[in-house]
Amino acid sequence: MVRVGIDVGGTGIQVGVLDQKNRILAEESIPTNTSIPFSEQIHQLATCIFTAVASAGVKMDRVESVGAGIPGIANMSTGVIIKCPNMGWYHVPFRGELQKYFQVPILIDNDANVAALAESVAGVSAGTSSSVFITIGTGIGSGIILNGKIWSGFHGIGSELGHVILDLDGVPCSCGNHGCLERYCSATALIRMGREAVQNCPESLILKSVSGNPDRINARTVIDAAREKDPVAVEVYDRYIQYLSQAIANVVNLIDPEIIVLGGGVSKAGDFLLDAIRKTFPKYVLYDDQPMPDIRLAVLGPEAGIIGAAMLS
Amino acid sequence: MVRVGIDVGGTGIQVGVLDQKNRILAEESIPTNTSIPFSEQIHQLATCIFTAVASAGVKMDRVESVGAGIPGIANMSTGVIIKCPNMGWYHVPFRGELQKYFQVPILIDNDANVAALAESVAGVSAGTSSSVFITIGTGIGSGIILNGKIWSGFHGIGSELGHVILDLDGVPCSCGNHGCLERYCSATALIRMGREAVQNCPESLILKSVSGNPDRINARTVIDAAREKDPVAVEVYDRYIQYLSQAIANVVNLIDPEIIVLGGGVSKAGDFLLDAIRKTFPKYVLYDDQPMPDIRLAVLGPEAGIIGAAMLS
Repeated sequence: MVRVGIDVGGTGIQVGVLDQKNRILAEESIPTNTSIPFSEQIHQLATCIFTAVASAGVKMDRVESVGAGIPGIANMSTGVIIKCPNMGWYHVPFRGELQKYFQVPILIDNDANVAALAESVAGVSAGTSSSVFITIGTGIGSGIILNGKIWSGFHGIGSELGHVILDLDGVPCSCGNHGCLERYCSATALIRMGREAVQNCPESLILKSVSGNPDRINARTVIDAAREKDPVAVEVYDRYIQYLSQAIANVVNLIDPEIIVLGGGVSKAGDFLLDAIRKTFPKYVLYDDQPMPDIRLAVLGPEAGIIGAAMLS
Repeated sequence: MVRVGIDVGGTGIQVGVLDQKNRILAEESIPTNTSIPFSEQIHQLATCIFTAVASAGVKMDRVESVGAGIPGIANMSTGVIIKCPNMGWYHVPFRGELQKYFQVPILIDNDANVAALAESVAGVSAGTSSSVFITIGTGIGSGIILNGKIWSGFHGIGSELGHVILDLDGVPCSCGNHGCLERYCSATALIRMGREAVQNCPESLILKSVSGNPDRINARTVIDAAREKDPVAVEVYDRYIQYLSQAIANVVNLIDPEIIVLGGGVSKAGDFLLDAIRKTFPKYVLYDDQPMPDIRLAVLGPEAGIIGAAMLS
């Protein structure tokens, strides 16, 4: 038997066919197209799934489930996607529409939850009973695994670490509030801090590495300049590490999972990020002289989405 | 069969004997005495338990367990209390010492966790599968119940909502960090805000009600003056409600329990508190158009400590 995992994203939809050992047998993708009706989008997705299953060399009756990770929230019991802004989906009957093509269980969950599940079963947090996965990219996503299962709250609106308030009356957030954690800890935040810092320090390596054009500064620009010990970049990076450490300590002080996993674009900084975080976050933990969660980097990469989606049950 | 519940506090230790239906059959207490050796403290506690069990009219062989809620943290598997500053207890063998008197299971947990358990079994959150109990007093305590069980983290250092950072570089906290949530949401915080506000507004009802002595301002002084629509008190109270709402929204955005229970001194403000919180916190919740946790007031009062301790297993 095989399971199908779908990773729904703003630019493309990935489909994977996985065997019982969570190995990817085949992968296909289609570009995201929000200009066509929802039923047509699902028709294209179904076609993509048929192609992927065929590529895997298995027959459709060997597919036991179809799971999807979405950048939004869904009602698990009805299979309706409540809100998925990147796709322009609001209250769409995802399961109902896909069920027209596949008469197997169709599961939906948030993409960060699904990545958290993938890492906790087949990735860096495999073997742990509890973990929190934090994906650091344009925003901050998070997935909570407790007793081996995704915890997204009683009403399904939890696990939104990015919008936990970290700074009263702080930086305005796209959600309408102020001081949300992702305004300080995302790649977007690091870029903003980098751009602000070079305004008064045009001699910084950050600016030199982008030929003097601040619009071209990205997270990697800042991180690479900090690695090179550029003073401006080091100051920005240290402050960013402080914010991210405070966010991680908040997770420890409240949830205290066995392990915390960092994924997403910024986590590509590898040990340069990990060493700094491991050194800094304990000072913000209340019981800082006690055993506390280990911090690790995600290992499954972008495929965590399809792997975790296929694991949904 | 009966169970013994112990509520360890900085001024006194309460002991209760409970029947199978969580009814208190007898209660006894001793004053906290930190000037005598630990073994002597436990001897006094054991004597108090013997007295309470006798008062309940049951024989010692009918006691099936002894549970204790402590203002600190313990290692559940060894029964050692790791840190309990109010009692001056650091790495003391609580279970080992008490086991000399009672050959039944002896359980220990944090006092806020224990109160959360009591409310979730026999109080306002009875029948729910998940709840977060927030006790608002000198500090902020919290207990998390997930799937009917206390969740205090993998390492036992979680569920410390009071020390989640709410304000980067904010008000200094006794824990050594800055901007901890309890610096904004505790009774102590409300008192501080009240005292600060009257400095420039000596005509405030807050000050009149304490005969002009700001040292006598307490949480109730401020709340009562706000009820009376004193402009200074209303401004302080509204800001306090905003902070507490942001703290509650943080719990919703991250954990999203079925219900959130407010206890402790400030919760005695009753509907005046509840109505304001219910109106304010949803605006800080990311998915504010979805069903979200109901906020309720604790109903068990100070006896939640012994009731919940007796429920430990």
